[in-house]
Amino acid sequence: MDFENYIQVVEGFPKPGISFKDVSPLLKDADAYSQAITALADLVKGEKIDLVIGPESRGFVFGAPLALKLNAGFVMARKKGKLPGEVVSKTYTLEYNTACIELPKFAVKKGERVLIVDDLLATGGTLKAVCDLVHEQGGEVVKALAFIELKDLDGKKNLLPYKFESILKL
Amino acid sequence: MDFENYIQVVEGFPKPGISFKDVSPLLKDADAYSQAITALADLVKGEKIDLVIGPESRGFVFGAPLALKLNAGFVMARKKGKLPGEVVSKTYTLEYNTACIELPKFAVKKGERVLIVDDLLATGGTLKAVCDLVHEQGGEVVKALAFIELKDLDGKKNLLPYKFESILKL
Repeated sequence: MDFENYIQVVEGFPKPGISFKDVSPLLKDADAYSQAITALADLVKGEKIDLVIGPESRGFVFGAPLALKLNAGFVMARKKGKLPGEVVSKTYTLEYNTACIELPKFAVKKGERVLIVDDLLATGGTLKAVCDLVHEQGGEVVKALAFIELKDLDGKKNLLPYKFESILKL
Repeated sequence: MDFENYIQVVEGFPKPGISFKDVSPLLKDADAYSQAITALADLVKGEKIDLVIGPESRGFVFGAPLALKLNAGFVMARKKGKLPGEVVSKTYTLEYNTACIELPKFAVKKGERVLIVDDLLATGGTLKAVCDLVHEQGGEVVKALAFIELKDLDGKKNLLPYKFESILKL
């Protein structure tokens, strides 16, 4: 399936100069959406996955169905202050400011094999922060995945030493 | 399955006086999460569903896998300013202020049969606003669903004339 036909490009969103890759048409097509989740699952074929973590909030749309498909649990990585109870946090740098991502404190057990999934990889700040949180909690980051990778931004390099794969390079 | 065992109650979150129902333990248990999605699907057994809509962001965690299970498309309902392109918006009243929820302008076609799914029904403001947007776009609201219903808040009444069902009454 040529997934690119299901991505809407919106220029100037959320701010001037950004060419936004919108996955809405993909999600709205039951067959394309299902095939997208299957394609992501194929990237970890043969690997045992205990947990899938998706960053808020489009990461939920790919991570949650992928967890169910892999028969793994799902954990939400959320922006600061959104998760109840005790959390672990990681602050990371964006182009002009900082952001903070959190996981429930006991979400990842030592030795658990974790897959981290987002809709899109740009510079990789969010995914890297989540990978680091998993690693610090004693989890094993099997791989980070994104459905779309913005290849000009070289986010894959910023994710090292973690492995990264994507379906659609734009 | 007794789903209540998989809900963590966090007192005083996100503010004093609120007894927060946290679905994180459910999502983390692959079997419980899968059974929760199956239970929601059973609430629309025999109904043709074209689209599932989930409100940001925990609605994605239930709505997206449910859409795939029902072989329906998925649409994200998002907070103001988060969706690219043309949108339709609905402002609604909360206890002390207002909120605004949006859908892509052409998300729902006339006559499409739509299921709206969230993690939890409290007073029903968000779900009602999404139902109204779907109705105004010419879609048919088959039903609104929530995994958890806070029965003391009587949100179900606020959703009328739309039909509503839930799995867990707390």
